[in-house]
Amino acid sequence: MPPPLHVSFIAGRTGTWRIDSMSTVRGEPLALAERLMIVEGQEATPHSDMQWALRGVTSNTRYTHKTELEHLVDKQEGLRRLQATCAAFIPIRKTAAWWDLAQDERRAIFEEQSGHIRIGMDYLPAIARRLHHSRELGEAFDFLTWFEYAPEHAEAFDDMLRKLRNIAEWQYIDREIDIRLSRSA
Amino acid sequence: MPPPLHVSFIAGRTGTWRIDSMSTVRGEPLALAERLMIVEGQEATPHSDMQWALRGVTSNTRYTHKTELEHLVDKQEGLRRLQATCAAFIPIRKTAAWWDLAQDERRAIFEEQSGHIRIGMDYLPAIARRLHHSRELGEAFDFLTWFEYAPEHAEAFDDMLRKLRNIAEWQYIDREIDIRLSRSA
Repeated sequence: MPPPLHVSFIAGRTGTWRIDSMSTVRGEPLALAERLMIVEGQEATPHSDMQWALRGVTSNTRYTHKTELEHLVDKQEGLRRLQATCAAFIPIRKTAAWWDLAQDERRAIFEEQSGHIRIGMDYLPAIARRLHHSRELGEAFDFLTWFEYAPEHAEAFDDMLRKLRNIAEWQYIDREIDIRLSRSA
Repeated sequence: MPPPLHVSFIAGRTGTWRIDSMSTVRGEPLALAERLMIVEGQEATPHSDMQWALRGVTSNTRYTHKTELEHLVDKQEGLRRLQATCAAFIPIRKTAAWWDLAQDERRAIFEEQSGHIRIGMDYLPAIARRLHHSRELGEAFDFLTWFEYAPEHAEAFDDMLRKLRNIAEWQYIDREIDIRLSRSA
């Protein structure tokens, strides 16, 4: 597992990824923007035509057990695959009630009740994913998840999101923005 | 549980806490300094006579189960008790091998094998403690722990540290500085 990587997602008029849609699933919306730039491993410089910037950092796993981690490592593929010209960027915030739970209670909701890992596993390796933690950086969201997939897996991706939004864990989410993006092949 | 609080520990010539000793337990030392200033809830401003500054952020529990959390909340006292004129500041870093473990493996080492929570519990409420996470902030240490206690509990504190340094979890620590401090009553 690589050491924590700081990543800034900067929405404005420039960047590799074109924003095709932005939907507010829960809570306050984010300002609309045309493109998203992703800056890794350094503090992003704010610039004048920026609509917003969200910062996150990759980290160690928090709920995944050894056997699950082995399956994930075995099945998942990395970002930046040539054919993965579609992406989704989904910032979420969890409620205070979630963060007040003890570790075993959060794990039980996350996996035993919700099957979060099991659901995600069914869509590997088609959907690649990187989770960024934001809560400890003092950001407006707790997590920023970045997904990449080929256009032929767009339906599968929607299918996965539908399932995730119905699990018990999702009741602890009070802000969620669903941003879809694409880039030229 | 309060939301994440950013805390900077700034060593130099000023600050409420006088540094009485600094011992390097493992790894590279930190520069000696006279006093420690603690700045909460904001980015600390670097100043010219500063020896070093370490930043951390409080967060949700990562290993504590519900019954353990209930016992802790029941027994522990907060920082800034009038009689607690002694403090210890212990920055530690864990190895890559620790961070590569899955959640259930880290929990098993932390508590079932090491009794980290059980050991700490025996010293409540005499020893007050606040844990700050640093790894995701890109700092040189992974955790900064701040302890406060009355002078008559200094021996008990040493006793607790001796036990902690002998547990299985401590084999995953490759840098540790033990800084002892005091303030006027």
